[in-house]
Amino acid sequence: MTTQENLFWQNTQVGRCDRQDLLDQRGCTIWFTGLSASGKSTTAFALERKLVDKNKIAYVLDGDNIRHGLNSNLGFGEDDRRENVRRIAEVAKLFADAGLITITSFISPYRSDRELAKQIHNKAGLPFLEIHMSTPLATCRQRDQKGLYQKAIDGEIQDFTGISAPYEEPLYPDMICDAAVDDVETSAGRILALLESKHILNPHQPEPF
Amino acid sequence: MTTQENLFWQNTQVGRCDRQDLLDQRGCTIWFTGLSASGKSTTAFALERKLVDKNKIAYVLDGDNIRHGLNSNLGFGEDDRRENVRRIAEVAKLFADAGLITITSFISPYRSDRELAKQIHNKAGLPFLEIHMSTPLATCRQRDQKGLYQKAIDGEIQDFTGISAPYEEPLYPDMICDAAVDDVETSAGRILALLESKHILNPHQPEPF
Repeated sequence: MTTQENLFWQNTQVGRCDRQDLLDQRGCTIWFTGLSASGKSTTAFALERKLVDKNKIAYVLDGDNIRHGLNSNLGFGEDDRRENVRRIAEVAKLFADAGLITITSFISPYRSDRELAKQIHNKAGLPFLEIHMSTPLATCRQRDQKGLYQKAIDGEIQDFTGISAPYEEPLYPDMICDAAVDDVETSAGRILALLESKHILNPHQPEPF
Repeated sequence: MTTQENLFWQNTQVGRCDRQDLLDQRGCTIWFTGLSASGKSTTAFALERKLVDKNKIAYVLDGDNIRHGLNSNLGFGEDDRRENVRRIAEVAKLFADAGLITITSFISPYRSDRELAKQIHNKAGLPFLEIHMSTPLATCRQRDQKGLYQKAIDGEIQDFTGISAPYEEPLYPDMICDAAVDDVETSAGRILALLESKHILNPHQPEPF
C-alpha cells in the first residue's frame, strides 16, 4: 500500500452554494495570458477595482508577486515555468472554489499549460475564462517600462518570451484584448460585460456554461 | 543581473481594507496542528460551518485534500513535508490577504515549519493563530478510522508522525483543544470566541494584536 492511497477526501460541511449565496457571485477564474508588457496586470487590476466597486470579491494572483512567495523556489527554465503555472492553476482553483472571482496574470506562454489550468477548473466544475492580451510585440516593447525586452535582446536575460522563448497564442480564448487598440478601462469594461453575460455576478440566474 | 532582480511588486488598486469592509471581517489564518486523528479537520470544518452561519467567509485548506492538487508532486519525507507546509503557508497568506478567514488543517509536525508559516503572515501584517489539537496519542489511535496507526506500527507506512516520525508540540499556541476532553462543537465554539476576542469578526473594532 502506497502512502498516496492513505489520502482520503475530506467532506466539508460548507458547500460551494453556501459561499455563493453569501457573496452573491459565482466563484471562477479569469486567466490572462500574453506577452510581457501586453497589459495583463494593468487590466487585471482595473477589472478587480471595477468588481470591488460593485461589491464583488475579486483577487488578483499576479505572476510577479507570487514569485516572491509560493513560487520563490522556481526559476525560468521550461520545467519551472510549467510548475509555476501548474501551482497557480491549483491555487486559483482553490480561490474559485472558495467563491472568489479569481484573476490570474501570467505570461503563461504554453498552450498545454493553459489547457491543464482549464482542465483543473473544469474537473472541479468551476468556470474558467481565458483572456488573451494580444498586444503586438512592437507595442509591448514600446510599453516596456522595465526595459526587459532590450535586456533580452542584449542577452542579459535568457529565455525571454517573444524574444528567446516561444509564445503560443490561444486558439479559442474567451476574449481578446489589445492594449494597442483599447485603453485599460475599455478592456476591463468589456471583460466585466463578459462576466455579466456568464451570470458570474448574478448566481441566481441559471448557469449558462 | 539575475532574473530575480527583474521582478517588480505590482501595486493593486484594491487594498486589504476594501475587502475587509466588504466582507465585514479581518482576513487571517487559523493554523491547526496535531497528530493524525487528533480532530484537526473535524474541528476545522465545524468552525467553518459556525463562521458561515454568521455570514462570515471561511475556507478550509486541508492536508489530505490539498495533496491531490497543489502538492500532488510532494512525498512524505522530511524535505517534502517542509515544502508541503511552506506552500500551504504561502497559499494561506494569499487567502488571508484576500480577506478570508482561512483555516488550515495539517499535522505540520515541525516547530520550525510552523514558525515559518507564522513569519510569512506576520511579515504581511496578517493575524495568524496556532491551535494545538493536543489529543493524546492513545486517543488518536482509538479514533483512527483509517487504521493508519496500526499500519504504521506494522511497518506498512513509513515516517508516520507519532510512531516513526517526530511531533514537536507548540510551545506557545494561541489555544489548545483536546478531543479526549471536549466534543467538536465545544472546541469549535471556543475558537469562535477567540476570534471574537481578537476582533476578527468585527473589523471596525481596533486591532488587538
